[in-house]
Amino acid sequence: MTASAPLDGGRLRALIRAIPDFPEPGILFRDITPLLHDPDGLRQTNDALAEVARDYGATLVAGIEARGFIFGVPVAERLGVPFVPMRKPGKLPADRASVAYELEYGSAALELHRDPSVDGHRVAIVDDLIATGGTAEAAAQLVAGLGGEVAGFAFVVELAELGGRDRLAPHGVTSLVTYQGAE
Amino acid sequence: MTASAPLDGGRLRALIRAIPDFPEPGILFRDITPLLHDPDGLRQTNDALAEVARDYGATLVAGIEARGFIFGVPVAERLGVPFVPMRKPGKLPADRASVAYELEYGSAALELHRDPSVDGHRVAIVDDLIATGGTAEAAAQLVAGLGGEVAGFAFVVELAELGGRDRLAPHGVTSLVTYQGAE
Repeated sequence: MTASAPLDGGRLRALIRAIPDFPEPGILFRDITPLLHDPDGLRQTNDALAEVARDYGATLVAGIEARGFIFGVPVAERLGVPFVPMRKPGKLPADRASVAYELEYGSAALELHRDPSVDGHRVAIVDDLIATGGTAEAAAQLVAGLGGEVAGFAFVVELAELGGRDRLAPHGVTSLVTYQGAE
Repeated sequence: MTASAPLDGGRLRALIRAIPDFPEPGILFRDITPLLHDPDGLRQTNDALAEVARDYGATLVAGIEARGFIFGVPVAERLGVPFVPMRKPGKLPADRASVAYELEYGSAALELHRDPSVDGHRVAIVDDLIATGGTAEAAAQLVAGLGGEVAGFAFVVELAELGGRDRLAPHGVTSLVTYQGAE
């Protein structure tokens, strides 16, 4: 990898835009597509996430569908470790484990192949955003259930008022940008 | 980027497994998760896709949800160009264009933000696999409709018997591994 300037938090914030009332009224959505459109910002973001995963001692990176793939693969590449996709039901074709979790309305599930395996690995779980932490908690359960050790979580964005960080304790949780409410 | 050994086609084939009867009876699914679990194989695959996109003269990479994100972002990073995600309906929060396309049963749609824009860019469209080419054709229509020029397509896997390549002509279509039927 080429050397990178350290991540500028103000610059990263400028590349994440707030979209009101998406996906439903009253929700302020944090949109990372401007960040993806900025090559330097994206590279610095991936460098910073990779540093987090390296500090966790990760030997494998798991990315949560779909935006977790965007950041998880570059992190795995930088560390030179395997990547596994954690997917919504009906997407992974081979033998797999599944963990259901609650959403505000209804429920969802996340799946992970039994082979290729996370067994014996220290797993960094990567996603673009942590809100309530429900998806991330399900991801950790999947990893642990298949013999992996959760090394920690790395997120680009954290919505602090939703308390996801507490839900994931005692695992390490690192995010590059934290928002308090509608700031 | 570090220098990479050239891609070994036999090695790449060994890292893609065939899963019978997924997602439905009679379909032979080509599963890339073993490739993602192999750091050298993944790096070489991304290097090869990036070489394709560079040869197209791409100034922007568009990845098709969800597996196109896995390969599209590393390609964009290698070229140092912007990445845009092309997503299923209901996922992109800002003003966007949409193109509907036919599936074997029913229909689907692909969406792309108007801002950040593909306008004026030479766009490499990246996905893991081309089958009938319906999704890729919709992706090309999206790009052209928003002022981008389709520079060409880069796929990891091509299912040649389904004829997707012909559907995408006259655009350039490059795939790293081609299967004829159930070989």
